Amino acid sequence: MIARYFTDLTGQSGVALGIGDDGALLNVRPGQQLVMASDTLVAGVHFPESATPRQIATRALCVNLSDMAAMGAEPRWFTLALTLPRGTANAEWLAEFSAGLGHIANQYDLALVGGDTTSGPLTLTLTLLGEVPTGKALIRGGANVGDSLFVTGNIGDGAAGLELITYENNTITDSDRLLQRFYSPEPQIQAGLKLRSIASACIDISDGLLADLGHICKASNVSSVIQAEQLPIATDVQQLSPLDALEWALCGGDDYQLCFTVAGDQLPIIEGLIQRGELDARKIGRIEAPTESLNAVAVVDKNNNLLTIEKPGYNHFGQ
Amino acid sequence: MIARYFTDLTGQSGVALGIGDDGALLNVRPGQQLVMASDTLVAGVHFPESATPRQIATRALCVNLSDMAAMGAEPRWFTLALTLPRGTANAEWLAEFSAGLGHIANQYDLALVGGDTTSGPLTLTLTLLGEVPTGKALIRGGANVGDSLFVTGNIGDGAAGLELITYENNTITDSDRLLQRFYSPEPQIQAGLKLRSIASACIDISDGLLADLGHICKASNVSSVIQAEQLPIATDVQQLSPLDALEWALCGGDDYQLCFTVAGDQLPIIEGLIQRGELDARKIGRIEAPTESLNAVAVVDKNNNLLTIEKPGYNHFGQ
Repeated sequence: MIARYFTDLTGQSGVALGIGDDGALLNVRPGQQLVMASDTLVAGVHFPESATPRQIATRALCVNLSDMAAMGAEPRWFTLALTLPRGTANAEWLAEFSAGLGHIANQYDLALVGGDTTSGPLTLTLTLLGEVPTGKALIRGGANVGDSLFVTGNIGDGAAGLELITYENNTITDSDRLLQRFYSPEPQIQAGLKLRSIASACIDISDGLLADLGHICKASNVSSVIQAEQLPIATDVQQLSPLDALEWALCGGDDYQLCFTVAGDQLPIIEGLIQRGELDARKIGRIEAPTESLNAVAVVDKNNNLLTIEKPGYNHFGQ
Repeated sequence: MIARYFTDLTGQSGVALGIGDDGALLNVRPGQQLVMASDTLVAGVHFPESATPRQIATRALCVNLSDMAAMGAEPRWFTLALTLPRGTANAEWLAEFSAGLGHIANQYDLALVGGDTTSGPLTLTLTLLGEVPTGKALIRGGANVGDSLFVTGNIGDGAAGLELITYENNTITDSDRLLQRFYSPEPQIQAGLKLRSIASACIDISDGLLADLGHICKASNVSSVIQAEQLPIATDVQQLSPLDALEWALCGGDDYQLCFTVAGDQLPIIEGLIQRGELDARKIGRIEAPTESLNAVAVVDKNNNLLTIEKPGYNHFGQ
């Protein structure tokens, strides 16, 4: 089934032998380290049961590509394990799913090199391989006291999109920007490549800025302060719910933007990239010394008063 | 959860950064190609619902390692996507599962470098990476007319073990050799390494000798003849059911032995390895010119009469 529906996704570079043998044979370029990451998406948990095959394929691949972006890696190859309910495994569904997967794979020059299909509740596991020049990977553990804190793009889009999808009386259409941001989050591959050798630490925002920045703080043994008024929140997100926008930005997840730290000597480089329009990023805070408190991430308003953020539970569709 | 229960499996070689970042960072050795393979196992389909966590972990890893063996690759790293029913995801289950996984991983010097856990019906997807010297991988498409046909070990053990498990009135114990052969098939990694540069084509026997040899024939555009009396069928398999033994050996699957072809000029090398006890393999037939017939694999008795083999349907537990 993989060979039948997905062969046009297998023509990218570095594949000595693709789908159809006991394993794929891949040529890693000299001087590169391999980055490997795996993610599972379950219907009703990571996407609504009502999602189209194209939406599911797009979201699954984008979410997985985001891990490559966060490591500063160039995506290269992937395998797909697809579990399908018997009723769903028809030619139409698979053709639409494959078209969605192919659209994203081609965009990022990523080749499907293997996989497996089984019967059962709709579940996808993707395993991606990327390459990064040896020693240049972006990791979580490199932040230092005094570093500046940045995010790429806008944050809160994913949570606002999720709110639209789960709000029963919504009147959104498929073309709604926020819906697109949920189903087609744009993996920040180009930003990740530019941040190699510049960012001291990096993570992608999948679980929410507070949670993911918390991972950087823990891995780097530091704390951090976010200035709320600096957070890049889109106008339509603000308008959708002025009361919720800040919480969506801080806790919402599903943005798949990068959160990264920059040491003082690299700041002019980042600021240059931003000013020349080569990097869409914004400074939102700073890295400080580790605290005794359980919460390593503080959020302050413009008067430097600590804000209390109520983190909502993770939203599982229909669970 | 992966970090908590599986960290002692992450200490092997070539891992620059293991579990705990957005991806693992791996050092591929110079002069090596990468082999990537992915397999999904579903409870009730690929193993019985009654299987213990240790049995599930062992079988999942051995089945995936067998793909590395079939490519002549040295296993290096893997990711695990584990979907668990809520009731199953307890500390005791995970500890036993992890112990089973660790036992096999350590035996083959394989490092767990990432993964994901989700809630749902018990399903495992493993993605393995191995290394093979550039150009030395064993593939399906290299068989030529006149090559000799071999299998490693015994065949029919897996199907006989499966029969014992699914036969309701069985009196087997956990220590039964055939039960072990089903739950702990021994991936033929060492045989695969020895066959590099010697075998012209190779595949592992997962779906049955006839089906898997058929893949070699299709990929190589040849046909093949198996001499039934040469098939290495174990005594206990013969005794369990003299009537079924041949069918188990030809169609049963789950053996995870290697089926490989050898050109005339390499025959003395293979025969030397076998005679010195360095390779447990047996010649079972030969490769012939492609036929017009749909079935590229013929089975003959010692008088060269064609045997008709009834291929049973694939056995899914409780389906």
